[in-house]
Amino acid sequence: MKRRGFLVVLSGPSGAGKNTLLNAVLPRIPDLKYSVSATTRPPRPGERDGVDYFFLDDAAFDAMIARDEFLEWAEFAGYRYGTPRRFVEECLAQGYVVITDVDIQGARQIKEKMPDGVFVFLLPPSMEELQRRLESRGTESAEAISRRLKIALEEVAAIVDYDYWILNNHLEEACEQLVSIIRAERARVCRTDFSTLPLKGE
Amino acid sequence: MKRRGFLVVLSGPSGAGKNTLLNAVLPRIPDLKYSVSATTRPPRPGERDGVDYFFLDDAAFDAMIARDEFLEWAEFAGYRYGTPRRFVEECLAQGYVVITDVDIQGARQIKEKMPDGVFVFLLPPSMEELQRRLESRGTESAEAISRRLKIALEEVAAIVDYDYWILNNHLEEACEQLVSIIRAERARVCRTDFSTLPLKGE
Repeated sequence: MKRRGFLVVLSGPSGAGKNTLLNAVLPRIPDLKYSVSATTRPPRPGERDGVDYFFLDDAAFDAMIARDEFLEWAEFAGYRYGTPRRFVEECLAQGYVVITDVDIQGARQIKEKMPDGVFVFLLPPSMEELQRRLESRGTESAEAISRRLKIALEEVAAIVDYDYWILNNHLEEACEQLVSIIRAERARVCRTDFSTLPLKGE
Repeated sequence: MKRRGFLVVLSGPSGAGKNTLLNAVLPRIPDLKYSVSATTRPPRPGERDGVDYFFLDDAAFDAMIARDEFLEWAEFAGYRYGTPRRFVEECLAQGYVVITDVDIQGARQIKEKMPDGVFVFLLPPSMEELQRRLESRGTESAEAISRRLKIALEEVAAIVDYDYWILNNHLEEACEQLVSIIRAERARVCRTDFSTLPLKGE
């Protein structure tokens, strides 16, 4: 029996803890691949091209948009970030599970292009906790944090378009939950090719 | 957020190991309830009414059939066995996950009455292994085992109507797989009532 690969899209409000959860779950599942994003942001010290990001210049990013080579893309703080479709599709063709963390707009774009992906919504434990997380990052002003919280409240309504939801109360529990979801999706009849059943007794 | 209960139907060919797997998974999930069957078979030593089975006489069983009170029922070796609908529905209404192990005909009957159940197909590792398991029970003649194997081969084709499949190669792995499926289904957006999101910051 051959199991087909699938894409897991981890999304939710900014500050819900998507990236932390993604990094916690990656080492737990052997055939899980991280979807490497492309970006026009210059590499930070220690970041490796093709591992952390595909680092592109503006012209190369424009060309990929023009050829519809992104599952989703967006601009943050003057730089563009996108999910290259080819990287994902090559991993899926090899039977891997691919995981990406994107914001809710990004998840919406991906759902249009890959409706059979597994869409997981990560809920921050509460708005107070979300505020605390945004503040502890220390990268944003009080006004920016207030704006983010307002957006987060609006975004939570998007949960109805998702397959699964995880409350990020405790990282370990959230991680186990995501592992269970991926393992269960692996066991879906619709994701398996049964042309060779293990029935040698015929 | 309130999570709604659901019914897990564990099915597969006779000898696949359904009952062993069910008994292994029950202690691992706190809110998982075993669906107690009704039967016209007399109790064996140690069996308790309402725990192992609901023991009924023929007239009581007939009456339940007449009132459509079974999710499925069948006759084996001169006795009748059935899944009482009310017991399952009461557990679901309290938010429990209910699990039952039934043969493939039984699963088909349940699917008609509860299409939103979670249907899990347990595959024996191979037909040789299945034969070994049936023989080790010591309750059937060679002819009966041969007949069972033929039926099993035909039954495996039913897998396409199921949501998930588990290969029963190692009990521990199969058990973890079933735990993952139940945990994942617990996390389904469609099985949750989001009327009270934990967003206190408004």
